[in-house]
Amino acid sequence: MAAPIHFWFDFSSPYSYLVNEWIDALAARHARTVERHAVLLGVTFQVAELKSPVSHPLKREYSMRDFARSARFEGLPIRMPQTFPLPTQNAARVFWWQHDTVSPQAAADWARAAFRAVFTRGVLINEPAALKALAAESGLDADAAEAVWNDPRWKARLKSECDAAVAGGMFGAPWIVVDGEPFWGNDRKVQIERWLSQGPF
Amino acid sequence: MAAPIHFWFDFSSPYSYLVNEWIDALAARHARTVERHAVLLGVTFQVAELKSPVSHPLKREYSMRDFARSARFEGLPIRMPQTFPLPTQNAARVFWWQHDTVSPQAAADWARAAFRAVFTRGVLINEPAALKALAAESGLDADAAEAVWNDPRWKARLKSECDAAVAGGMFGAPWIVVDGEPFWGNDRKVQIERWLSQGPF
Repeated sequence: MAAPIHFWFDFSSPYSYLVNEWIDALAARHARTVERHAVLLGVTFQVAELKSPVSHPLKREYSMRDFARSARFEGLPIRMPQTFPLPTQNAARVFWWQHDTVSPQAAADWARAAFRAVFTRGVLINEPAALKALAAESGLDADAAEAVWNDPRWKARLKSECDAAVAGGMFGAPWIVVDGEPFWGNDRKVQIERWLSQGPF
Repeated sequence: MAAPIHFWFDFSSPYSYLVNEWIDALAARHARTVERHAVLLGVTFQVAELKSPVSHPLKREYSMRDFARSARFEGLPIRMPQTFPLPTQNAARVFWWQHDTVSPQAAADWARAAFRAVFTRGVLINEPAALKALAAESGLDADAAEAVWNDPRWKARLKSECDAAVAGGMFGAPWIVVDGEPFWGNDRKVQIERWLSQGPF
């Protein structure tokens, strides 16, 4: 089987939410699998000397408009959380805990639950109580999840993935890598689809 | 006839070059016209507290790769100029001179010539000698063109367009406005096409 499609994201990225809803069907169409990587945009932004698009005058207004329009274009619901962007390190540690101790599929299930919670219900996953409730709702042990996000082991696990993201050139999300070729953004879907079906162009 | 499609750009923007090669056919498909606006990204970047994508670590490498890949994806030639980004105020003043004293079509012809010179032949249009040569090659009076770009009247004309760009929310290029709806980037073509054919979504 061909190499997996690598999908790097931050749970606070609305364009990553849109890609998360699409990428499994993409992979199936091309007999590939998806390897998800939850990381922190704060880390990649710092290395790249960037800030969130909504931290910039003019770009903020456009981005908020484009998040919603891009979701509507794809027929997906979207509702921006009241805090945006929001810190996601705890949700990301839960992702890696599920990934390493249960399975990549369990981590993917958590990713979908977390993205949908943030971007369709406005759940503030930076708040411990809200994140515990989401964990319980998703069939996880909420107390264990809380212990995980305070555990140096899972902090280190997330940090090593963030280091790998930077080493791979990631500066924004979603960051999708197909056979070594990087694609940034929800708006590279058509290029990715052609790359997978016809090879490098 | 429906309102024109407004296309705002800087001659130093490779994604604007790609849109420039596409937008007239788009307009024809939807019984629209195109109104081009040559402006300066330096002005919009300053207001939006942004820098060129190639000024950022990590993003620079990706952007250079993506410029070329996006051109190949569309079957268009591309060759990046040795100086990039490059100052384009003189070329933009020539654009407005042609626009106001000859016709919007003459300005569009100049825009195509300038974009192709920069991005397929690596012509450094920031250098007066090169820009004069390009003007002559394009059928313009090269000495008159040089007088134009040193003339306060045409400096003021360009400045007022830059002010209008910022007032309209523009922070990057290409910036395309359809019936008041702004679209940023070469990667919003599919959304623009749907907006034109089916109306707002």
